Amino acid sequence: MNPPRDPSQARPRVLIVGGGFAGLACARALRRARAEVVLVDRQNHHVFQPLLYQVATAALSPANIAAPVRGVLSRQRNCMVAMGEAERSDADACEAVINGRRVRYDYLVLAAGMRNGYFGHPEWEAHAPGLKSLNDALEIRRRILTRFEAAEFEDDDEARRAELTFVVIGGGPTGVEMAGAIQEIAALSIPRDFRRVDMRSARVVLIDSNERVLRGFHEDLSARAQRDLERMGVEVILGCRVVGLSDREVVLRRKADGECQTIASRCAIWAAGLKAESIGASLGAEADRAGRVIVEPDLSVPGHPNVFVVGDQMSDRDPETGEATPGVAQGAIQSGDFVGRLIAAELKGKAQSDRGAFRYHDKGSMATIGRARAVAEIGGMRVAGFPAWLLWSVVHILFLVGFRNKLAAISEWVWMYVSWSRGARLITGTPPRPPPPSEAEADRVY
Amino acid sequence: MNPPRDPSQARPRVLIVGGGFAGLACARALRRARAEVVLVDRQNHHVFQPLLYQVATAALSPANIAAPVRGVLSRQRNCMVAMGEAERSDADACEAVINGRRVRYDYLVLAAGMRNGYFGHPEWEAHAPGLKSLNDALEIRRRILTRFEAAEFEDDDEARRAELTFVVIGGGPTGVEMAGAIQEIAALSIPRDFRRVDMRSARVVLIDSNERVLRGFHEDLSARAQRDLERMGVEVILGCRVVGLSDREVVLRRKADGECQTIASRCAIWAAGLKAESIGASLGAEADRAGRVIVEPDLSVPGHPNVFVVGDQMSDRDPETGEATPGVAQGAIQSGDFVGRLIAAELKGKAQSDRGAFRYHDKGSMATIGRARAVAEIGGMRVAGFPAWLLWSVVHILFLVGFRNKLAAISEWVWMYVSWSRGARLITGTPPRPPPPSEAEADRVY
Repeated sequence: MNPPRDPSQARPRVLIVGGGFAGLACARALRRARAEVVLVDRQNHHVFQPLLYQVATAALSPANIAAPVRGVLSRQRNCMVAMGEAERSDADACEAVINGRRVRYDYLVLAAGMRNGYFGHPEWEAHAPGLKSLNDALEIRRRILTRFEAAEFEDDDEARRAELTFVVIGGGPTGVEMAGAIQEIAALSIPRDFRRVDMRSARVVLIDSNERVLRGFHEDLSARAQRDLERMGVEVILGCRVVGLSDREVVLRRKADGECQTIASRCAIWAAGLKAESIGASLGAEADRAGRVIVEPDLSVPGHPNVFVVGDQMSDRDPETGEATPGVAQGAIQSGDFVGRLIAAELKGKAQSDRGAFRYHDKGSMATIGRARAVAEIGGMRVAGFPAWLLWSVVHILFLVGFRNKLAAISEWVWMYVSWSRGARLITGTPPRPPPPSEAEADRVY
Repeated sequence: MNPPRDPSQARPRVLIVGGGFAGLACARALRRARAEVVLVDRQNHHVFQPLLYQVATAALSPANIAAPVRGVLSRQRNCMVAMGEAERSDADACEAVINGRRVRYDYLVLAAGMRNGYFGHPEWEAHAPGLKSLNDALEIRRRILTRFEAAEFEDDDEARRAELTFVVIGGGPTGVEMAGAIQEIAALSIPRDFRRVDMRSARVVLIDSNERVLRGFHEDLSARAQRDLERMGVEVILGCRVVGLSDREVVLRRKADGECQTIASRCAIWAAGLKAESIGASLGAEADRAGRVIVEPDLSVPGHPNVFVVGDQMSDRDPETGEATPGVAQGAIQSGDFVGRLIAAELKGKAQSDRGAFRYHDKGSMATIGRARAVAEIGGMRVAGFPAWLLWSVVHILFLVGFRNKLAAISEWVWMYVSWSRGARLITGTPPRPPPPSEAEADRVY
């Protein structure tokens, strides 16, 4: 990680940390700028995050929803891509530390996003992985599929029920999508593959601390989503907070009356909380509770006009409404694009007495629930059921990176729709050793 | 892992260990038998091994060449699939130990295959992974792609040459295919994605201890394959044995004169030696040097007529020619099918004074070298170049498991052929932390 700095080369360097929606949009907005754009990401690929849950639930392969960042920016000659970990940044010295090496910049754009936050319980991560990267998705896929394998040969009723209980924590779009997809796997995709246990008996529980799922949507759509989930067989538990988590159980406390309940489960998935990547904190700027850097209206960091924070990692306020940009793909793309254009204009030497303020334009939001079920909100319009699902499919295909990925994803979806099966039911990665048998079991011959 | 054994149920149990070509063929041959067939594999998926190198070289995704074993056998109602590790087998007691649990059988079919063998140097495995599973393939892909990433920002000429030197050890079909594919990645697929280093300068070295590559083929085809590889830019070193291996270099000794040479390389791949999975040894039967169990003409283990070994794990002799069945897909399929039919006939109560002997029918062999280059040997016919490559593609598509996988693989190949790019260039898995910078580097600002 050492982009060389030739002093004779007069191009100012724009260092972008993060190759997600925000970082890519920023790099692309700088495509005609007379600058040396350096984009750093710890992975070599851009992930289309809205479809990550489909990799976790074995519908798509990693390559269907991800593309090498280098490939995406291959034609942008002023942009260099580096794979590495941006550890911290010293805004006064205009230097960032990447893989232990100090890298100078003229402009810094932090677009490193969020990772899973466990509300002060980092030990929960081992028992309930979240869904932020391809590795996360493959790990969650491994865990889900492994539970069905174990259940098939579990003779104890209680233990088998725990093997077949899946708890999704967090009722936002990711949680709703995960819960619906796991229910579909158990009820539709795999029953005919097993001989001893009816996998349709699996229990999928969706938990949220609010009184409704999809809090970001209109109440009608929340109700519709909940009804659809329940019709599919998902159990929705609202108004409860997780207070305990192990590889054996999830403990909930009802917010209203403090009553606790324990769900025996061998597989929990975290879709509840996020916190900002730590590089933002090294700026020394003020941050909100989730670690997002509080930015000026132009998305720069107070006191450092050449340092910007975009995407999920920023905490902004709309100058008129006072509302924060939501942590969705559109917010990331729009803020990245805004800063990229702003820097491009400055580099052209345009007067910058007023940089203007970033304003988020809500183009709508949607969440899919299952086969031919979704909810969508576009402008004032609210759609649910099959039309929403069709809309969801079209929009996600349109925005999926790369011609090749679009075709591949479409063909997987069509195949899944007509065959009711999921193509990517592969368990990869290194599983923990199964526990040794008890003494009684060791004596028994099966 | 406890298929229950109901004494009232009279069906004899056939326990098959391994869901590769041999195990699957055996299970399928038993589809009409009045038996309880139990197939155990440590993975949940069958891998189409001949295309594994394409996953390692980022052309295909795991789901393109693998299918869940359960799905493949979903319609065979007399067959139960279990995911687990078969640790050992006691042929006298008719019991095998699977995940620590004792499982009884009436017939046992070992089809566990081979793993990478390092000729008494197990410590080499960390520096030169072999290619036997999807996890292996993803690990090799990660290593190859990571070297290009590191080379892009390596300023020291010597270190960069080591980053860009790929050593493939073993000149059989897998080694030839790997070397050709890595050369194509460096020369064709990725150069336009990098800014600082010309990846076409990468050096791919193929090493074999024999005097020619593809020893199993006719000499003319060996020569042709070597010429094709060299034209593509691969360096072929013959008659040399590896005597040292680390993450920094590969040391070779020429067999003819004992002269040593050292190749500085950060990425070596093992395609040289295999040894049989250890469960065969627990039978107490005689084994050959690679650990393959020496079997009777009917593929049973001497002294245990109800225990068979098939596929790569067996060491057989053709009753007429005295030749051993080669460790290829056809050998595995034919031997698995032979034993499956034999057991099915016995279960029908047919007279078994003579079980007959297994005879391998060579349907030909082929190896691909690169874009539109391959060699093939079918009957007495020898083909090379584009016709052989077309033949290779057609045969591999025909035998690829599952309709869906065929379509997906065809579309990936067509795309790769027209676009010169590789779709699955994703680095997944957990990489080791990069080394910290030296003191000089830490002081330097890039």
